[in-house]
Parts: sequence; structure tokens; C-alpha cells
Amino acid sequence: MKLIGMLDSPYVRRVAISARCLGIELEHDPVSVFRHFERFQQINPVVKAPTLVLDDGEVLIDSTLILDYLEALSGKTLLPTDLSQRVKALRLIGLGLAACEKAVQLYYERNLRPADIQYQPWVERVEGQLAAAFTALEHELQKHPLPTDGILQQDGITLAIAWSFTDLVVPDQIDAERFSHIARYTAYAEGLQAFISTPMN
Amino acid sequence: MKLIGMLDSPYVRRVAISARCLGIELEHDPVSVFRHFERFQQINPVVKAPTLVLDDGEVLIDSTLILDYLEALSGKTLLPTDLSQRVKALRLIGLGLAACEKAVQLYYERNLRPADIQYQPWVERVEGQLAAAFTALEHELQKHPLPTDGILQQDGITLAIAWSFTDLVVPDQIDAERFSHIARYTAYAEGLQAFISTPMN
Repeated sequence: MKLIGMLDSPYVRRVAISARCLGIELEHDPVSVFRHFERFQQINPVVKAPTLVLDDGEVLIDSTLILDYLEALSGKTLLPTDLSQRVKALRLIGLGLAACEKAVQLYYERNLRPADIQYQPWVERVEGQLAAAFTALEHELQKHPLPTDGILQQDGITLAIAWSFTDLVVPDQIDAERFSHIARYTAYAEGLQAFISTPMN
Repeated sequence: MKLIGMLDSPYVRRVAISARCLGIELEHDPVSVFRHFERFQQINPVVKAPTLVLDDGEVLIDSTLILDYLEALSGKTLLPTDLSQRVKALRLIGLGLAACEKAVQLYYERNLRPADIQYQPWVERVEGQLAAAFTALEHELQKHPLPTDGILQQDGITLAIAWSFTDLVVPDQIDAERFSHIARYTAYAEGLQAFISTPMN
């Protein structure tokens, strides 16, 4: 199986790290949706990263759906099966994915669009949503700290990836003092082998 | 449980229809992320639709994650458990969600941003991706028709919602002749009670 996409996409990195945690080996082809648009188009005409090409040629997109497949394939899971624990994990993952989406939107507005046609009301809306997502995540980590004993589940993976990605692309939105629990957990996760072997750049 | 968000969001409608198919009753509060921003913010500071507020006050976001919870809660599923069938369903769902995302991006560019700061290269990129997603979906339906005997699974729900939503917000991107299998399947789905009782507007 081949994972297509750059690891500076939080969605690609999420799949790559989760696959390692599930014990699945993925070949990786770091094709960029911007710099290698035409090459990407030949693999997947929709040009979305991550793209997972299965051994029989079937093509999957959307990180959460790809993870569904990898979990079904491996017979393992990175989510709790107990319902109340699962809700807590799904809440963290949803907030982490929202942070990724908002950081992507800010980055696109600032970097893909000429400066004179950037739209300030949109920027302010998205900045507010990004801060709200991290505020909610910080609050969750204060209430229910994630384990830091070598265990890595989907909630911790998505949270750490979201923070590292935001720090990479819109670092002015990052405040490690205000969000100290997130920053500390991310430092822990980035020190684990699954993260170290899957660097953003 | 309360589902927050307007049914003209394909992600909200996807959750509402899936909940019905799973036999779960959701109270529905059609709060708009644009017209009722402050009211939405009080329920969920990240202001993302759908938002699911559980009976104990816990708040979930992201349609796929909310569906994970509703399936775990109900003990039912709208996805095949057989792996090769599941891959086919995940592929359709991924393409349907990609179509939704691209239709949303086009709608936002045209309707949220003053006309003189819309960015044509972005519009063309997204239009191409939207057409590619529907082309791939049309091809899948030709190869593997979805059942139209009253059964509704997550692949069919997401596909029909994506097509109806695109028709609502960027109808110039819709070509029912070119994508005749999608149009026909959507007409079937929109005629089922779960869709009729959950109208876009």
C-alpha cells in the first residue's frame, strides 16, 4: 500500500503515524498537491492528500476514512471501545481536526492568495475559531490528562499533529504558555519513535 | 441529544439522515454558523456544524466522528463489515465528502467574499476537483450500482447529499446528463422517507 502526500499536511502525517501505531507498513510517496499537481492528478484526479493506494489499485481519500480501513485491516484500533471513553476521544479528535482545518484555511488565505485580495473578516473569523479549538482542547487536557507512558492513541496523535502543524504554518497563532498542556503533550508525542520517524519536513 | 446546524449544510444533513436510519431520535436546532454566529458560539465556541450536544452536555463535532458515536451508541452500522465491501463504501464516502468540501469552497468564494477579491485560479482549481470527484463517483456507480430497494447505507446517503447540496449552492457545476447515474441514484434517495423528512430548506 502506498500513502501519497507530503508529511507537512497534518492529515497525511496523521495517517502515517497511526499506521505505524497499528503495525502497518506503508510505502510513502511525498507528492505535493500544489507543487506536483499534475503528477498527483495521475494518481488521484481529485488531488487530495492523503490518498491511499491499495495493493489492488483501489484509491481511498479522507484521513478518518483511511484510518477506518487501516483499523479494519489490522484488526487493531487506536480508539477506546468503552462508549464513555470513546466519546472523550472523539471530542478531542474533532477539536484537533477543527484546529487543522482552521490552520489550513489561514495558511491558504495568507500564502495562496495575492496580498491585496486577502479578506480580513474571513481571517478574523478563522483565527477566532482556531483559538477556540485550542482553548477547548487545553480545557479537556486539564480535566482529563492523556497518558504519557509510551501509549499513543488516536486522540493524542491528532492533538499533537494539530499543534505541531499550526506551529509550522501559522506560528503567530501559537501561544505555548496559554496552551501549556497542549504544548507539553505535543513535546511528549514528538519525542516518541512514531513521530520522530515521521517528520513534518 | 441535540443536533445543531442548518440542514443546508451537507454535513448536518448527513448526520440527521444517518441518525434516522440508525433509529436514533435527535432533537434538531437549526442554528446557522453565519446568521446566528453568536448563538452558535454559546453552544460550541468553535462554531462548526454539525455540533452534537449529548444528554450529559458533552459536545462533539465532525460529521464522520459524530456518526462513529451514533453507531457505537445504537449498536448498528451503516457500513459493510466485510472488508472488500467496506473499501468500496469508504471510497464512495470519501469522494462524496470531497465533493461537499469543494462545493462549500466554491460557494464561500462566490458568496462570502466581495466580487472584486475573488481569486480565479482558486475557483478553477476547486471546480476541477469537484468535477473530478463526481466523475469518479459516476464511474463507481457504473461499475457497482448501489441498491435501490429501500436500503440506505452510508455510501448512498453521502453520495446523494453531496449531489443535492451541489445542486443547491453551485447549480452551474451540475450536469445531470454527464453524471446520470449519480442524478438517478439521488432522485431515488431523495424519494425515501429519511430524506423527505430531512429537507435541505
